[in-house]
Order: sequence, then C-alpha cells, then structure tokens
Amino acid sequence: MNRNKLLALIEQRRSCLCVGLDTDPGKLPLGVSVLDFNKAIIDATRDFCVAYKPNIAFYECLGTKGWEILEKTLEYIGNEHFTIADAKRGDIGNTSDYYAKTFFEVYPFDSVTVAPYMGKDSVSSFLKYPDKWAIILALTSNSGAEDFEMLPSNEGKVFEHVLRKSSLWGTEMNTMYVVGATRAEMLAEVRKIVPDHFLLVPGVGAQGGSMEDVFKYGSNKDVGLLINASRSILYASSESNFAIAAGKEAKAMRDQMDELISQYSN
Amino acid sequence: MNRNKLLALIEQRRSCLCVGLDTDPGKLPLGVSVLDFNKAIIDATRDFCVAYKPNIAFYECLGTKGWEILEKTLEYIGNEHFTIADAKRGDIGNTSDYYAKTFFEVYPFDSVTVAPYMGKDSVSSFLKYPDKWAIILALTSNSGAEDFEMLPSNEGKVFEHVLRKSSLWGTEMNTMYVVGATRAEMLAEVRKIVPDHFLLVPGVGAQGGSMEDVFKYGSNKDVGLLINASRSILYASSESNFAIAAGKEAKAMRDQMDELISQYSN
Repeated sequence: MNRNKLLALIEQRRSCLCVGLDTDPGKLPLGVSVLDFNKAIIDATRDFCVAYKPNIAFYECLGTKGWEILEKTLEYIGNEHFTIADAKRGDIGNTSDYYAKTFFEVYPFDSVTVAPYMGKDSVSSFLKYPDKWAIILALTSNSGAEDFEMLPSNEGKVFEHVLRKSSLWGTEMNTMYVVGATRAEMLAEVRKIVPDHFLLVPGVGAQGGSMEDVFKYGSNKDVGLLINASRSILYASSESNFAIAAGKEAKAMRDQMDELISQYSN
Repeated sequence: MNRNKLLALIEQRRSCLCVGLDTDPGKLPLGVSVLDFNKAIIDATRDFCVAYKPNIAFYECLGTKGWEILEKTLEYIGNEHFTIADAKRGDIGNTSDYYAKTFFEVYPFDSVTVAPYMGKDSVSSFLKYPDKWAIILALTSNSGAEDFEMLPSNEGKVFEHVLRKSSLWGTEMNTMYVVGATRAEMLAEVRKIVPDHFLLVPGVGAQGGSMEDVFKYGSNKDVGLLINASRSILYASSESNFAIAAGKEAKAMRDQMDELISQYSN
C-alpha cells in the first residue's frame, strides 16, 4: 500500500488507529479459537481503524499452526487496511533479504517492524520493494528504552542518531518509525529530525500514554501517525461479548482521533 | 545445555566450531531437499563441531514447511551439540516472553540470538530458563556495524555499553555475545569488559576474518569462543559431493582450532 492510499484511508475514516493483533491464547474467552477471535475483532473494528498489526511472537509460539492462523487472518483483513508484521527483524543484508521475502512475498504484509542495531544493510533489504515499508524502531515504549536508545552519544541520543542516519536510507514513502506514546514529549524532538515520516505509536491504552499528547507533539499536516492499541481493545471484555466491547473501545478511540485530527492536522 | 557440558564437548572434540545452517534453497545441488541437505551436512560435520546454528530467516521464508524442516533438523542434531536459534529477536518484555517460549519450549533450542536495542526487558525473558542462553548482539560482522554499534557515546562505543550493561542482567552461565571476526582486534576490547563470557564469532570463512586473530584476541582459559562458519562449509562444493567437501572444510577448521586451543587456552 502506498502513502497516498494510506492518507486516503485516514481521511475517509477520520482515524489513524492501528489495532494490534497480539492475540494471546491464554487470554481468550472459553471455547474461542485464535482465528475466530481475530475475525470477530476485525469485524468489530474494521470501520474504525486504518491498520492492523499482528505481533508475530504470538503466532510463532503456536508452531506451524500459528503461521496458518496468521495467513488466514491477513486474508480476512483484505486490502482496505494497512498491514504491519510486528516482527522486529534485522540481520546482515544477505539474511535480511530472506526476512523481507517472508513478510512481503510469502505473507503479503505492507510493512515490517525492523530493529536498527545492525545498521544500514540490515534495514535496506526491506526498502527494495515498491509500496512496501520498513518501520524502524527509534524510541520504544518499554522501560528498557532507557538502556541504549536514550544513551547520549556524540550525535545526540542514540535514537536521534538512528532517526537522522536511517532517514537517508529511504524516504517518507517507504520508511516509518516506532516512537512510544509513553514518551510523548519526545515526539517533538523526533519531529525536528523527521518532520514528514509516519510514526507508529504504541503505548496509548494499556501502557498509559495520552492520545492528545501524541497528536500535540507528533502529528503533522498529513496526520503522520498510526496510533496502536492492542490489549485495551482485544481484552476490553474477557467474556463472550468481547467483540462488542472491542468495537466500542475502537469507536471511542476513533471519535477522539476525529476531533484531534480536526484540531491538529486540518 | 549448561556451560559445563559445553566445555566438555569443546575439550572432547578439540573444536569450538559452530556450523551455521543458513540453508539457502536457491543454492542446493539439483534434486536435494533442504532437509536432506541439512542431514547430510550434519552427518559430515558432527564430529568436528560443537554447535549448530540454523538461521531462522532461511526457514521462515519457506512458510509452515520451513518450520517443519527446522524441527526435523533439530531432532536430527540430537543432544550432543549446542543449538543456536539465530533469530535476532527482541521486543517488550510481555512479547519477548513469547519469543522465548517459541525457541525454548516449542522448539528445543539451547540458545537464541537477541537484539539488544530495546534494552533490559527485551532480553530478560530469555534468561529465565535454566540451562538456556541469550546470545546478545554486541559487535556484528557486517558493514552496518559502523552505523550505531561503533558510535562513540558517553559510556564508550555503543557496543561497549551494551556489553557492560547487559552483562549485569545475567551471568556467563546464561549469556553469550556476538562479536564479528571481521573486527578481530576489537575482541581485545571486548575481553576487557566480559573476560569470562562465551563469544559467538561469525565472519571467519566467507566474510574473511582470521581464525588465528580470533583466538589471539578473543580466547580465554576456557576457550570461550564458538566460531561460526556457514557458507564456507555448506557450499564448499555445489555438486553432489557437497557433503564430503563440507566435512573436509569442517575438519580443516577443527584441526586449526585444535592447534590454536593448545597455543592459547591450555
């Protein structure tokens, strides 16, 4: 999916919501399979979001069955949502080529999250496909972000150097960045370095980040945000009404986004 | 596999060779399947190496069939070699738990390579299992290592800070580090920070690093090295005699290791 189509979806749905399909087999209502759960969540949230992000860890841990579920989930999503393989891959170029093949050819994802530690050749493999995207980890939402990402270096904090350097490898047409909502005030610093790129923002919802702050510090004239919520939508109810509860939660987030888009981007 | 057993294998076989099973479906001799290729390579190299390291990218790109091949390859290796899932995983703690489950429970690997960018909670999940190991990327063998790993920071180069900080999360009984042979002189710097940890060293062979330099700068009294070769062994011949050629190459490396172990470690 190219940038223009993504922008059109955001404009149509007045939403930049990404639903994280971190489907935890241990948290499903009794008698509901992972695939049926995903389908019900997708049906309930489809109109309120522009992207779906299955976290590959939750499928991989089911063995080959998990990859089949992932494939069927992608088919069920269809072509009117941007899809993100949250896989955090990255290896030497020769190997990253195969990771790109997996998520762009074997499974038809629009994008993959990529860990930048190993540098340019580990990322470039994901930038060779037209209308596909690398979503590079910059400043993540977890406590461990303090350990290395926030480390002061001769080139600013390490994550700032990652933004500055990696933004030269691709363009805002094929590269996005992960920046956590739990550090919303840092979004202003991020925007100084990458004013035009889309940012994938986890950490609103279960992790406690503020959506208004994300817009305030992180949005640009194209919105420029995909705000992810996983657990707060998937597990809005642990009972058999889980899909209705998920739909309500997604709609509430969309309604808030509708207002914030008017306030900050249009 | 615990450290004592690994040390015993190194002593028995006079080898610290790790064979990287980066089995590229596009490079196999005509009519040989990935699984049959792996079995033939394992049979030919078993006596000369102490570890096998399937690179997960090469299996993942085959879809569910690839994971079945991986499982059967692991079974074929058995329990007398240390096994490494070269997966370079890492995510927030909640998610890394599932990656650890995949490679330590669903597939019975002894260790997983882990990308440190996201910090402590992304690595700790892999340190909770007795006799299992996290092998943390420190200084990799590729050109991209210059981009961020070598970046000077307030705490030394970024990879030095990764070594210093992450070595406090586990011990030399459950943590190893990836340090590329293409930067062998840096091994001396690495040893100042982590004198006792095992190092997994790629880059000897196809990537051009010198085995003697790796021992000179990187070995300790326990050897403390797993030196990986992938392409130089797997594709020693592209003909039907590939297994014989692989065995010869592995034996030559083992013979050189035997001498270097005497010279530097015993």
